Amino acid sequence: MVRGMRRRVIVIGGDAAGGSAAAQAKKRQPDLDVVMFERGRATSYSACGIPYWISGVVGSEAALIARTPEQHRAMGVDVRIRTEVTGIDLDRREVSWRDLDAGDEGREPFDELVYATGSVPMRPPVPGIDAAGVHGVQILDDGVALRAELDSGRVRDVVVVGGGYIGLEIAEACRVRGLGVTVVDRSPTPVGTFDPDVGEFIADAVRGEGIELLLSEEVVAIDAGSDGRARAVVTAGGRELRADLVVLGLGVRPNVRLAQESGIPLGISGGIAVDARMQTQVEGVWAAGDCVESRHRLSGQRLVVALGTHANKQGRVAGINIGGGYATFPGVIGTAITKICDLEVARTGLSSEEAGDAGYSFVTASVDSSTKAGYFPGSGPIRVKMIAERRSGRLLGAQVVGREAAAKRIDALAICIWNEMTVDQILSLDLAYAPPFAPVWDPVLIAARKAFEAVEVDVRNL
Amino acid sequence: MVRGMRRRVIVIGGDAAGGSAAAQAKKRQPDLDVVMFERGRATSYSACGIPYWISGVVGSEAALIARTPEQHRAMGVDVRIRTEVTGIDLDRREVSWRDLDAGDEGREPFDELVYATGSVPMRPPVPGIDAAGVHGVQILDDGVALRAELDSGRVRDVVVVGGGYIGLEIAEACRVRGLGVTVVDRSPTPVGTFDPDVGEFIADAVRGEGIELLLSEEVVAIDAGSDGRARAVVTAGGRELRADLVVLGLGVRPNVRLAQESGIPLGISGGIAVDARMQTQVEGVWAAGDCVESRHRLSGQRLVVALGTHANKQGRVAGINIGGGYATFPGVIGTAITKICDLEVARTGLSSEEAGDAGYSFVTASVDSSTKAGYFPGSGPIRVKMIAERRSGRLLGAQVVGREAAAKRIDALAICIWNEMTVDQILSLDLAYAPPFAPVWDPVLIAARKAFEAVEVDVRNL
Repeated sequence: MVRGMRRRVIVIGGDAAGGSAAAQAKKRQPDLDVVMFERGRATSYSACGIPYWISGVVGSEAALIARTPEQHRAMGVDVRIRTEVTGIDLDRREVSWRDLDAGDEGREPFDELVYATGSVPMRPPVPGIDAAGVHGVQILDDGVALRAELDSGRVRDVVVVGGGYIGLEIAEACRVRGLGVTVVDRSPTPVGTFDPDVGEFIADAVRGEGIELLLSEEVVAIDAGSDGRARAVVTAGGRELRADLVVLGLGVRPNVRLAQESGIPLGISGGIAVDARMQTQVEGVWAAGDCVESRHRLSGQRLVVALGTHANKQGRVAGINIGGGYATFPGVIGTAITKICDLEVARTGLSSEEAGDAGYSFVTASVDSSTKAGYFPGSGPIRVKMIAERRSGRLLGAQVVGREAAAKRIDALAICIWNEMTVDQILSLDLAYAPPFAPVWDPVLIAARKAFEAVEVDVRNL
Repeated sequence: MVRGMRRRVIVIGGDAAGGSAAAQAKKRQPDLDVVMFERGRATSYSACGIPYWISGVVGSEAALIARTPEQHRAMGVDVRIRTEVTGIDLDRREVSWRDLDAGDEGREPFDELVYATGSVPMRPPVPGIDAAGVHGVQILDDGVALRAELDSGRVRDVVVVGGGYIGLEIAEACRVRGLGVTVVDRSPTPVGTFDPDVGEFIADAVRGEGIELLLSEEVVAIDAGSDGRARAVVTAGGRELRADLVVLGLGVRPNVRLAQESGIPLGISGGIAVDARMQTQVEGVWAAGDCVESRHRLSGQRLVVALGTHANKQGRVAGINIGGGYATFPGVIGTAITKICDLEVARTGLSSEEAGDAGYSFVTASVDSSTKAGYFPGSGPIRVKMIAERRSGRLLGAQVVGREAAAKRIDALAICIWNEMTVDQILSLDLAYAPPFAPVWDPVLIAARKAFEAVEVDVRNL
């Protein structure tokens, strides 16, 4: 860098991770030139809020936007929307870009690069997958397109392929709008990151909402009509499901094409490999958000977790380091939460299957209790399941399912796991008690007691 | 103990601590003789639920009872209700008792004794304090008496002396019943265990409910009429408050009279001194609940905390040890929660004042955020205040105030404190995020970020 010239930071991707990195770097070091490219129209929006805007629970698209391009610009970040980065040249340290509306192309040099391209929806390799009316829901513009279809009035039946978080949230949104909805999932219970017994609650809630749930079933083709639009989904079990609209809810994969083409190394999980400061293996090239690989603090495994809360934290860390500060991202423990109809579900740490895969041997304990004192009006059911390591009793994972005010209790359990607490230690915790908030033994503590008993019984057999 | 004779355990007090100890000891070792004396009519009831039964939010007194005398007896515990223990002879290892209804007296030998006498309401030493119509609210029978007064129809105006948790809960209960209510408190803000800025929110909520709140004011006398019933409360500031009923909400002190008389040593706080297993300094004499002294894990200080959740845990620990097992109570960190009208408030760790008293030097940070994603319907305000040690950044205390779904977040903060986490570590925690449950940066994390910034700024000045 020539002395006296302003250092230039280029950010690829203007949602949670990129927006946070840009804002943080500029805030820490105001004389940085920060240019942020975003292929969509919006910056720093809540992708997680899209289902709620589609259902109408959230009134306007604008409500989902945390920081508009204009707001970023007011902070001194040069935002280029509807502009796609088409290549990265690591030797010349420049990116090439194309304006998606005007068609202009150009190149832009950088001293530091932030790779924050997010993820792309998984597309099953089945005939008809490219038909019109087949939608992934990833960026806000996808949500706009999906909502336009629903608003057009020509959609009566929707098939959602995949019963994970997004799949179920979109399914519910469509059901709220009065449409016929079918969800097809390969697994025997939906949201495979939960243990099957918790998954059963989810399945019941989904069906209770009038959504057809086809489990242990696979989509083998999408039938298109003569107009090229999807009209039915065909399953391996021989069902032909009428569909005016098909939504892909199979999860996402990191958007790493540009990284692969330019030689930014990926990790074993397929996400971009980063160090604790969110720097890739290329000096001065940083990455954050859905496209990067994170470390799971319990299993030690590398994995990609596409979640806005990590994207924001990782973007912040990258931005602080670029801005001359010091920050690290300490990894994840798999905490997740969602609301399915009236049911709240959450998980943290490892599921039984994940714990087994990571080599742990464990006991489990589940308790059914109430969210408030049992006698208090509005008290609802809650089930807490714990997965505790044999002998040590260390909490490896927890799942919570219940009605209002149930699932956010997962945070307490996440912090127990983060601190490697044993269920014996957990049952003595000084948690908040008053009748409007909890039974005198909070469900978390009862579950820990029961898990501790299971550990003790098991120890005698070791 | 003569071989072949059953070991006998006597439990004094049949609420949370005593009931838990009795149940646990009997469960662990079914051939124990367990005799439990209770001076009231009820066993194992929720004292914390009394205000909600008085207001009518909870429909029946029976709902507050977790385990009736009959249920205890079915488990093999010999329960003697309306029977007061009048003395303990540690040399002969026997207690003397009196049946409060029949007037019978007797003695009962023990091998092990559990002292679980709870607490008694503080009574200010002012003229008229013993007038009829002046009530403490401690045991369920007190609640019954108070409710009978209210049901009599002759009460129009209530004065509550003391604006702590119980005082405010009872004040609200009376207000819900349509009565005129005034709360008098010495401090400039109610519930003195909160920092004054959080206390202001509480004061606003109380006043918003139509309750008169006299702060920095003291009761100097209670005026009784010729019938011996209270009719007014006189304050130091010269106010004369009409009162058909006076409720004492000044907090409680441990009920240690019998211990003092018999020679069971107290601790520095005035509560019964116990070791980690809840054994007193007298071999085979155990104590649990509101009458014992606990260790504060942060300040190292000994204190008495009258709270059902500790009573249950301590009773369980005593019972396990008596029953031949091994368990310890690891101390408290001052977690508390309550709902004042629509306002939820909670605290954990040390308040600013307590932190200073314990010798800590600290910074504070407060953030105003929302309980759900800001755009999500039903999202309410939440303020999180953190108190972090200078230099180290260790979280010393936290307070939360807000609307629905705000205050139970205190559990997450309590577990952070329990594990001696710094605010820097806290801001990276993997907490649950989805729009119906939290903003993408949970208020807890934003507060940690802000507290961390405050610690960093402060460090430069050290």
